[in-house]
Amino acid sequence: MSSNSLGKIYRLTTFGESHGKAIGGIIDGCPAGIELTEVDIQQDLDRRKPGQSSVTTERKESDIVQLLSGTFEGKTTGTSIGFIIPNKDQRSKDYSAIKDVYRPSHADFTYESKYGIRDYRGGGRSSARETANWVVGGAVAQKIINTVEIDISCYVSKVGSIEMLESDSFFTDAEVDVSIVRCPNQSVSTKMIALIEETKKQGDSIGGAVSVVIKNDVVGLGRPIFNKLSADLSHALFSINAVKSVEIGIGKSTTELKGSEQNDAFTIENGKVKTSSNNSGGVQGGISNGQDILITISFKPPATISQKQFTVSTSNEQVDIEVEGRHDPCVVPRAVPVVKAICAMVLADHLLLKRTDKIE
Amino acid sequence: MSSNSLGKIYRLTTFGESHGKAIGGIIDGCPAGIELTEVDIQQDLDRRKPGQSSVTTERKESDIVQLLSGTFEGKTTGTSIGFIIPNKDQRSKDYSAIKDVYRPSHADFTYESKYGIRDYRGGGRSSARETANWVVGGAVAQKIINTVEIDISCYVSKVGSIEMLESDSFFTDAEVDVSIVRCPNQSVSTKMIALIEETKKQGDSIGGAVSVVIKNDVVGLGRPIFNKLSADLSHALFSINAVKSVEIGIGKSTTELKGSEQNDAFTIENGKVKTSSNNSGGVQGGISNGQDILITISFKPPATISQKQFTVSTSNEQVDIEVEGRHDPCVVPRAVPVVKAICAMVLADHLLLKRTDKIE
Amino acid sequence: MSSNSLGKIYRLTTFGESHGKAIGGIIDGCPAGIELTEVDIQQDLDRRKPGQSSVTTERKESDIVQLLSGTFEGKTTGTSIGFIIPNKDQRSKDYSAIKDVYRPSHADFTYESKYGIRDYRGGGRSSARETANWVVGGAVAQKIINTVEIDISCYVSKVGSIEMLESDSFFTDAEVDVSIVRCPNQSVSTKMIALIEETKKQGDSIGGAVSVVIKNDVVGLGRPIFNKLSADLSHALFSINAVKSVEIGIGKSTTELKGSEQNDAFTIENGKVKTSSNNSGGVQGGISNGQDILITISFKPPATISQKQFTVSTSNEQVDIEVEGRHDPCVVPRAVPVVKAICAMVLADHLLLKRTDKIE
Amino acid sequence: MSSNSLGKIYRLTTFGESHGKAIGGIIDGCPAGIELTEVDIQQDLDRRKPGQSSVTTERKESDIVQLLSGTFEGKTTGTSIGFIIPNKDQRSKDYSAIKDVYRPSHADFTYESKYGIRDYRGGGRSSARETANWVVGGAVAQKIINTVEIDISCYVSKVGSIEMLESDSFFTDAEVDVSIVRCPNQSVSTKMIALIEETKKQGDSIGGAVSVVIKNDVVGLGRPIFNKLSADLSHALFSINAVKSVEIGIGKSTTELKGSEQNDAFTIENGKVKTSSNNSGGVQGGISNGQDILITISFKPPATISQKQFTVSTSNEQVDIEVEGRHDPCVVPRAVPVVKAICAMVLADHLLLKRTDKIE
Repeated sequence: MSSNSLGKIYRLTTFGESHGKAIGGIIDGCPAGIELTEVDIQQDLDRRKPGQSSVTTERKESDIVQLLSGTFEGKTTGTSIGFIIPNKDQRSKDYSAIKDVYRPSHADFTYESKYGIRDYRGGGRSSARETANWVVGGAVAQKIINTVEIDISCYVSKVGSIEMLESDSFFTDAEVDVSIVRCPNQSVSTKMIALIEETKKQGDSIGGAVSVVIKNDVVGLGRPIFNKLSADLSHALFSINAVKSVEIGIGKSTTELKGSEQNDAFTIENGKVKTSSNNSGGVQGGISNGQDILITISFKPPATISQKQFTVSTSNEQVDIEVEGRHDPCVVPRAVPVVKAICAMVLADHLLLKRTDKIE
Repeated sequence: MSSNSLGKIYRLTTFGESHGKAIGGIIDGCPAGIELTEVDIQQDLDRRKPGQSSVTTERKESDIVQLLSGTFEGKTTGTSIGFIIPNKDQRSKDYSAIKDVYRPSHADFTYESKYGIRDYRGGGRSSARETANWVVGGAVAQKIINTVEIDISCYVSKVGSIEMLESDSFFTDAEVDVSIVRCPNQSVSTKMIALIEETKKQGDSIGGAVSVVIKNDVVGLGRPIFNKLSADLSHALFSINAVKSVEIGIGKSTTELKGSEQNDAFTIENGKVKTSSNNSGGVQGGISNGQDILITISFKPPATISQKQFTVSTSNEQVDIEVEGRHDPCVVPRAVPVVKAICAMVLADHLLLKRTDKIE
Repeated sequence: MSSNSLGKIYRLTTFGESHGKAIGGIIDGCPAGIELTEVDIQQDLDRRKPGQSSVTTERKESDIVQLLSGTFEGKTTGTSIGFIIPNKDQRSKDYSAIKDVYRPSHADFTYESKYGIRDYRGGGRSSARETANWVVGGAVAQKIINTVEIDISCYVSKVGSIEMLESDSFFTDAEVDVSIVRCPNQSVSTKMIALIEETKKQGDSIGGAVSVVIKNDVVGLGRPIFNKLSADLSHALFSINAVKSVEIGIGKSTTELKGSEQNDAFTIENGKVKTSSNNSGGVQGGISNGQDILITISFKPPATISQKQFTVSTSNEQVDIEVEGRHDPCVVPRAVPVVKAICAMVLADHLLLKRTDKIE
Repeated sequence: MSSNSLGKIYRLTTFGESHGKAIGGIIDGCPAGIELTEVDIQQDLDRRKPGQSSVTTERKESDIVQLLSGTFEGKTTGTSIGFIIPNKDQRSKDYSAIKDVYRPSHADFTYESKYGIRDYRGGGRSSARETANWVVGGAVAQKIINTVEIDISCYVSKVGSIEMLESDSFFTDAEVDVSIVRCPNQSVSTKMIALIEETKKQGDSIGGAVSVVIKNDVVGLGRPIFNKLSADLSHALFSINAVKSVEIGIGKSTTELKGSEQNDAFTIENGKVKTSSNNSGGVQGGISNGQDILITISFKPPATISQKQFTVSTSNEQVDIEVEGRHDPCVVPRAVPVVKAICAMVLADHLLLKRTDKIE
């Protein structure tokens, strides 16, 4: 039982508030013998960091990870990997104004009610700054799943009502990063950017969706009954701030299908069992079947907007609030590397767990 | 790490195949002093059992639970509660025909690939028969959450494209059970039943959705970072066979909203902090805020249909398959008590965990 | 978090009171492909069952295990293995006399204080009857560790002040079972039996010790920091009723040694790294080093004696107590198969976990 | 499953090698509202730090803890508490000589065999430097248990064959620290110091024992079956480097007692149920009974000695070894605060868990 930990064998445990000295974590259960330096992780962190484009928050964090343990002469040793990411650009003064008020649809009210105390600076532990820790955990996890050629593609497939249709295609990070909004369809991307910029001007924010396509030949990831791959992915993805739905395969639209339409017929391709369609999204009975794993994650618009809103104070009085701080007008572009990291960690965990399936 | 267990403090561990001698489980962490007899559980089991109406499978299981431990003189003792549900109507002969073939969109292929062996009778461990165990766990969990007046409403809100709109309203089990399809809107229910019966005649199956509305005054259920109430609910719900999406609050449609539309303004009602809208679905920052918890779960159409399908054999040859056995043409009516049980277990777990939030 | 579960990957969860309908458990994480029938388990259960000789309790339990799931056509399938052992010879009336009184050095007082309720019949959940469940878990675990030729020897090395000196030697179960007290040194065994019978006549009971010698060529069982093999063995062994100390290797007498005496010099034997002495008891830095794993476990005399004792009632009054029921005058002979089962489960768990040590 | 974590609710996860940049950890599950600053922790760290007296190693580490998260305005917030302790005096050159050789009775061989790689500098992760992390976890835990007036006394009761007899008495830290060897009996202490100094001169090391007496009025700490207080204490204590035995209550000498001698008669004292003797050591049926909790822990002599020893090289050749580095001639004086910290963490965990025992 550890509310700040993710995973069974490959396990990330984290700490850190938005405006504390540092955030960080510990990776437990990482196999020995993996080549690992801070450089491997930094490129993923750079994809997540704030201030990277006109569609993200202007808050700047250099987000430099320091590995403190668990490697020796450039390789993992099997012992726990501790790391920190110092906080730099904190501007705590920005937040003193909201110290006595609950920002609408933030975690201010629930945290203070639960614990009787709240670090109000930047949302404290509820800040999405935490997701930088996950990117570190995900970067290491990717080294594990790369050994069996599992490859994860994540990109923005929807912003507001602007949607990219081919959302079960695989795109490389390089292809995705051509667009600052991280939508690999360039004409759709252009419309998304325009919508976000327009929304930002209005002092408002906008929702969106991230699509995941995981190339995976490994049949057998996931365990019955309560460690289904789909369930563990969903749990981990719902841990990301602002997620409101997770869909596997054909997702919500399955409700309108008949079995004869939904079922994925098995076929033989190059001597391997494959399916002729992939409505299941690569998971059957909670276990990977060797087809692409398909996931769609919906994100709500960021709760922080510049418009005046109604709320209550910590002394239960009705008040207005106008938040000044810097914020993302749309969370999905920066969510892309976070979603990728989360998926990598779940897959690495199940890949290791899979080693114990059969007697030798 | 236990793939057959759900929960941290209140924890259900299960076993059982569709056609073994019995299924069953162990409830660990149930507080002492709860009045509990088999009668309390049986009424929930009866809501789930097969053969109950024209829209469910004709397979009949009496599904009688036997409590084997953990109670004394009608009360829980704090020790683990063991129970079994003997299997009765097994008809294993029905399944010998599919012993050497992978049924499309079933777990036959993934289980056999993973473990090198598969109990092909009725799907073995991958059968939804397992969910009877969860109903037992849920019935006990409901006794825990009832002490703080948490109350769960579950019902069918969609079958195929027939949808009930008022899916954030609370209905009692009695109101829900007026309809054999468990949709509390009677005109919608009538259409759903007609659609299911028509689908059944075609030897086909159909998808659907279950809505959950949880009355909950307890602020503070759920823990940052990886035991968010929403994430734990999602994990548990995705453990149910055939689930393809989970949405919290406004769910997937949040993608199209602006922050100014999505945000739930705080207000004071009768001295309590409430919100004037509930797009968050009762969970903010992963923690309950005292509003109704709103969830929508999408189920795919049952994979078992009577039509001829293409598939492969266990010796990797392309074959046709025509399945004879009995099956549900639509899973959602019987999923209702299962969803309720799952939600009850997650809430009971978090209610107990909440006792450790603050120093005394 | 599950107080009724043991192990990480290979995990036993149990239930059952001394006088309920049945005891039983669930084995999770057992690899697929192991040949397993009830016969394999029964022989271990028979070694533990009451009523087997003049030095054990006269209570008779046939202790027949029923496997309810997790095997198919004689092999494990990778799914959870449920089992029950029905209770037969319960004689609950024996215990009504102690319903309102706390038996000295039993768990009556602590259970009732903790939970506010107590199944007083035969000690309820605190009864050593629970250990029959562990023997089942251990029998399956032994099939796992036998694949790498780990072999466990357990025997009685001390009863009262009668001690067997060569307690780091390996004896087979057959050699051990020549003696009803399960001490493989026949002259020592004879004295132990005489002492137990004499003690029994006095209506008293007597303590003793069990020695464990595990032949194990696997270097690398155990994990830093909090899953050391020694620590996990100690935890599991201290879970056995009446255990008051656990020693690894030279154990307590290490306090009087100098480093130059204690240290085990490394040598090369047949191309393998071995040590010329084994004061470490096969574990260094918490990890197995390929030497025999040596453990000594001390058991207190059974708390149930026939003599009159002073105690208090549940209404906090000073009373006398004279217990009538049947009981073991010395626990160690029947503890031998229990200790063996416990060790087997810990080793099987670590053997599976070891598969995740390195990247492939 | 996390090999670097201790505890269920109150849970410490750690990282760090002897000669890396820093060691550190994360405390999860600490209740909100506890007053906590680094000063509270530092005094405990100072009791453990090396170089504090003539009977400890000369290696000097300032061991300054930095809290990185989890507190706000001097109080815990309920979120995870991250901390680091930078490594200072590393002198890695000392260790290059042992890079290709396995030091006898160290973890060099087992780590390298297990993981295929080993940070040989100062033992890497197997170094007792890790225990500084535990002292941090223990300092916070003590704040939790102090709220119910649980109070832990730890002291050295044995060095070599010099033994302090009154080892079930309670002594304050101040009383214990009068002696540099941390034995509160001054005449015994003087002899112990002489023995350690003599041993050090010989380039040798010596074993010893630590006694624990925990004043605890809380009846009900510990859970059946596999979270017995005694078993969890034993597991945690066996995680400490060099521990070879753990005894609860009368411990190993129980083997020679009769039940009539061992049993602790219940009595009424000031309206509370107490026992007239305490052979059980405060734990019955695995659950605290309100008597002092008594534990004895045996430590082997430190494996590092200055004398020439036989061993093998990493290329499996027989070699001599003479270790130069600084080391403790006897581990028990510095083990005292570590044992205290470990016990505090186990007790805090069970105290929090106890809140979920009964329905409210």
